[in-house]
Amino acid sequence: MRTTVGIIGAGPAGLLLARLLRNEGIDSVVLESRDRGYVERRQRAGILEQGTVDVLRAAGAGERMDREGLRHDGIELRFARRRHRIDFPALTGGSSVMVYAQTEVCKDLIALQLREGGPLLFEAEALAVEGVTTERPRVRFRHKGQEDVLECDYVVGCDGFWGVSRKAVPAELSRVFERTYPFGWLGILADVAPSHDELVYARHERGFALLSMRTPVTSRLYLQVPEGTDAGEWSDDEIWDELERRLETADDWTLARGPVTAKSVTPMRSHVHEPMRHGRLFLAGDAAHIVPPTGAKGLNLAVGDVTTFARALTHRRDTGSSDRLDAYSETCLRRVWQAERFSYEMTTLLHRFPDASPFDERIQLARLERLALSRAAETDLADGYTGFPLE
Amino acid sequence: MRTTVGIIGAGPAGLLLARLLRNEGIDSVVLESRDRGYVERRQRAGILEQGTVDVLRAAGAGERMDREGLRHDGIELRFARRRHRIDFPALTGGSSVMVYAQTEVCKDLIALQLREGGPLLFEAEALAVEGVTTERPRVRFRHKGQEDVLECDYVVGCDGFWGVSRKAVPAELSRVFERTYPFGWLGILADVAPSHDELVYARHERGFALLSMRTPVTSRLYLQVPEGTDAGEWSDDEIWDELERRLETADDWTLARGPVTAKSVTPMRSHVHEPMRHGRLFLAGDAAHIVPPTGAKGLNLAVGDVTTFARALTHRRDTGSSDRLDAYSETCLRRVWQAERFSYEMTTLLHRFPDASPFDERIQLARLERLALSRAAETDLADGYTGFPLE
Repeated sequence: MRTTVGIIGAGPAGLLLARLLRNEGIDSVVLESRDRGYVERRQRAGILEQGTVDVLRAAGAGERMDREGLRHDGIELRFARRRHRIDFPALTGGSSVMVYAQTEVCKDLIALQLREGGPLLFEAEALAVEGVTTERPRVRFRHKGQEDVLECDYVVGCDGFWGVSRKAVPAELSRVFERTYPFGWLGILADVAPSHDELVYARHERGFALLSMRTPVTSRLYLQVPEGTDAGEWSDDEIWDELERRLETADDWTLARGPVTAKSVTPMRSHVHEPMRHGRLFLAGDAAHIVPPTGAKGLNLAVGDVTTFARALTHRRDTGSSDRLDAYSETCLRRVWQAERFSYEMTTLLHRFPDASPFDERIQLARLERLALSRAAETDLADGYTGFPLE
Repeated sequence: MRTTVGIIGAGPAGLLLARLLRNEGIDSVVLESRDRGYVERRQRAGILEQGTVDVLRAAGAGERMDREGLRHDGIELRFARRRHRIDFPALTGGSSVMVYAQTEVCKDLIALQLREGGPLLFEAEALAVEGVTTERPRVRFRHKGQEDVLECDYVVGCDGFWGVSRKAVPAELSRVFERTYPFGWLGILADVAPSHDELVYARHERGFALLSMRTPVTSRLYLQVPEGTDAGEWSDDEIWDELERRLETADDWTLARGPVTAKSVTPMRSHVHEPMRHGRLFLAGDAAHIVPPTGAKGLNLAVGDVTTFARALTHRRDTGSSDRLDAYSETCLRRVWQAERFSYEMTTLLHRFPDASPFDERIQLARLERLALSRAAETDLADGYTGFPLE
């Protein structure tokens, strides 16, 4: 097989990239190791930044998102039984976010790709990326038991943290930056209308809690739990009781309960692989970087990466200049590190750290208090939450 | 001896308090364990917040400050050989800071007090504060070898971290919050015009450096050094060489050298004692809280505390209501914790931490980069630097 851009991975990064390239008349092939059903079912993030919303719309992939997604103009912070709302459009000059699950974004992009786009092969497992410093890199893959080779001008690795793409960057040229947090998030999906119309981020001495949602009738809720916790250790009642305690307010707000339909634990870590480009291999999304979920940045960074790549390749086709492709890693990493910083600050602002001293706890409360006192501090948070500009 | 307000300590907190009370016609006595020469010589902070400048002026103690002090409208941050200026008035709606040494503030206040104020006893060492939960607290002290007692309506402990005042708050009612940093500041005074007209805060992989000043012909410079460093370990040439390395820029800025007239190491720590009031004893300044010098908040917090006390006592005299005196601790602690937070953030933004991982270093650079990218982030810093509002 032969194509211009070989895309490994049909998560939101790979699928959106195929769409962006197709819109520019650039052909691509997407290889995805899992089957379609698996890809369309896996639960991931659910908050789209303003820039992500804009890119999906411009790509012609925003129709159902605009119909079914929930536009959110703010979030609520809870601490010391107080509530403080951050008003995104008022602080940022009009930006907001969209609650629309990653899995729905994937479904929409898969449907579009199969109808209008180039090849999208499910159950096509990439085995190795080769020759990335030549003019003609190759992806060896196995599709339904058969080994095959995809010859490309460029390879974009959108195959996540565990994928093979990153391994094609020689270790001696790579630098890895990591932080593991000593806790995870126990998340549930529940068939009950959300008890607040915006996301609620709660700092509590028992640990962090987040009230989120997928649809007007589906709640998504999270509890900070110790590292290594098994979701099975918590009964549904225990989860609701604990959520109620951590989301407490001074007024008479109550948490509505409903049937729990999914329960899982997400570890919390940060990871950045530098550089994000080696020869004609470009890494995008989780293949290059992981953020803790606190800032809701993972999916949005992936969208940023592939948008940057698609624009850079279009620029090369239109002008003959490789400057933007050559700058891909630096361009993306600027945004990646701002998102890592933002996620780190949101995480340290809201979680209970096992080794925190009483002084550290007071500083954490003073950081929250600062958000209630200062429009500048609120604006800084709102800018970060609604997203950093795409280049 | 008998007075309305017994003030322990003739640092800037105690001296300013005596002045503020005298202006309201409230009598006080100041006890200072050291002699006048010592108090007028000790080198401390040198940056006055906008609110501190306003208070000194309103108290009639701003004449020489306005003549000799240097108004600063910004600071410069240096990192990765870049320079980024924070413009205070543009960001805060007109606030700035004043470079005028604490020791000069003390000289001015001592001269005013001796000329116009109540008793100010040097070499009067407070031995104990007693009866603070009665209507008539007492300070036992030794003045030039003679023991004596000062009977008061109120006692204000402005006697610093090592003073006796804090000990009059029972341990079981006290809570202490502390953080010690694994480094200190090696500071020099030098007879040379400052090499930049505003303060320069430099983050460098070798450690933090600060270019500051006392007068147009006196520089004050600091180097981050490991905890426990003795100033004698560093020759003058070694200090200048290291300052030059850490303050480096991409352009051809140079550091002018001159004779070093003082050299010392300041430890870095945060400390807060809660509550700041017990009965009729009120703690102010370093007696209640210590900040690392990075945010230049120590003197300014002391001014905030005694201003709050003087206003609260005036309010009581004028209205008969003790509400503001009763709220003294909460009122001050709100500002104290914001200053502790600010100092903590400035410290972690700029210093090299021995246990920092490569990830932590990248986050630190991303925090600095954010200040260059975002007016909201700059405003948050400028608000904090020029000062939190007095109540």
